[in-house]
Amino acid sequence: VAAKTQAKPTLGIVGVGLIGGSIGLAARRSGQFSRLLGTGRDRANLENAVRLGCIDEVAADLPALAEQADILVFCTPVDRIAEQILSVAAVCKPGALITDAGSTKAQLISLVEDDLPGDIEFIGSHPLAGSEKRGAEHARADLFDNRLTIVTPTPRTPADAEKRASEFWRSLGSRVMSISPAEHDQALALTSHLPHLVAAALAGLLPTEMREFTANGFRDTTRIAAGDPALWTPIFLHNHVELTDATLRLQRRLIEFSEALLAADEATLTRLLAEGKKVRDDLGS
Amino acid sequence: VAAKTQAKPTLGIVGVGLIGGSIGLAARRSGQFSRLLGTGRDRANLENAVRLGCIDEVAADLPALAEQADILVFCTPVDRIAEQILSVAAVCKPGALITDAGSTKAQLISLVEDDLPGDIEFIGSHPLAGSEKRGAEHARADLFDNRLTIVTPTPRTPADAEKRASEFWRSLGSRVMSISPAEHDQALALTSHLPHLVAAALAGLLPTEMREFTANGFRDTTRIAAGDPALWTPIFLHNHVELTDATLRLQRRLIEFSEALLAADEATLTRLLAEGKKVRDDLGS
Repeated sequence: VAAKTQAKPTLGIVGVGLIGGSIGLAARRSGQFSRLLGTGRDRANLENAVRLGCIDEVAADLPALAEQADILVFCTPVDRIAEQILSVAAVCKPGALITDAGSTKAQLISLVEDDLPGDIEFIGSHPLAGSEKRGAEHARADLFDNRLTIVTPTPRTPADAEKRASEFWRSLGSRVMSISPAEHDQALALTSHLPHLVAAALAGLLPTEMREFTANGFRDTTRIAAGDPALWTPIFLHNHVELTDATLRLQRRLIEFSEALLAADEATLTRLLAEGKKVRDDLGS
Repeated sequence: VAAKTQAKPTLGIVGVGLIGGSIGLAARRSGQFSRLLGTGRDRANLENAVRLGCIDEVAADLPALAEQADILVFCTPVDRIAEQILSVAAVCKPGALITDAGSTKAQLISLVEDDLPGDIEFIGSHPLAGSEKRGAEHARADLFDNRLTIVTPTPRTPADAEKRASEFWRSLGSRVMSISPAEHDQALALTSHLPHLVAAALAGLLPTEMREFTANGFRDTTRIAAGDPALWTPIFLHNHVELTDATLRLQRRLIEFSEALLAADEATLTRLLAEGKKVRDDLGS
């Protein structure tokens, strides 16, 4: 007598770029899903994603994907996620789990939770992985291996959603930590959004005629400035209060450097440089 | 009848770390030198440099190296180069060429030129290569391949010195450009010293408990903060006027960002990010 087995779930990926495509590849590697569906705006990229194995099929549209998926992951720009989730919540399967991979959390989660039907489980997520590159062509099955994914429960999050989302990210190779959306946005303002702002500010200062005088230092320090403004402007806007605060903290530090430079204050310069070195050495390569 | 051949010259490398060691390996690869001599403060590193083939022999001391070398390259911290050159100028071979690999030029060149004997040819150099790593163990024969070395003639530089130094760097694989020491220091303040300052400032802001929330963006942007303050404080002090100016320009740009963030000004944020992206895309990886 054959044992009854539960059918494997269907995964729906909304936005199959670097992150969404990597989720598909890692989900395929996990063997946990019967089917990987994807949707998005760029038809050529979706066809590429199928060819690369990031997804099995392109869903006709977002409602068609929502009707079939047991787990939905939204990997679209942060200014579109809440609206997209709410637009399909009514057609999702009962008990479907919805999460996202957005770089900001508080604003979009609050928008979603205000209007989400009760039989849908939702929790925000943010895998701390990625790069300045875009598109399924850069997706990698190991993108999340040993990286941290933050899940951000609120008092309104069903307990089961946190458990299911954590298991989902772990099945992709990630470590998982739970913190509140506000804690997430405060931390990421400093660890991700400010570095992007600084890289863009520094790159934007470089006159054309000085490009030939750049070497690895300039290139490393500005690398993430190559990220798409269409993704980053919404991130900056969603997190503008925390990011303004982080920018002001950096400015205070730059003033310390400027004053030490003007005074040719060797001890202070050495201390400021040593503080940076200690942190960077501790982070490892 | 055998043709008379000119003996190949001896190269003397003062400070056989990442840069000095790579000069040795690239000089060996070029086949232009009969002997590679090195000296420096760290005995274990020098022995390592011999073992790795960066140099043939460790000179007993700096005067012993100077007595034997036809070309001397000083790869020591910028606050020691002028003093070291002047300390051995009197014992150098007549017609010896002296250059250096320091990251700042105007101050040390002026110190050297004020006191250098007339039969020594001196010109400042700066190969735009390297990394946050230190020591001969990180030296590479191809470090200078297709990279730019800036040579910085002044009205007092013998014409032959510029030619000989340019040929020397080209024989190591480098491209070579001549600009004045002041132009060098102004350009490098923006393209090298400011990125280092920013990386150190950003890294220094990170509290211990937020380290786990860093990903590639923070790591790339702060990578060069791992550089040794013992090398970078003298660079900052030598170039403190230009670097202060570059820092103020960055601060103005950060204020533009802050104001746009506070006003939730999407158009300005997008413009600022797009300006940075354009420059970074043009630089290539």
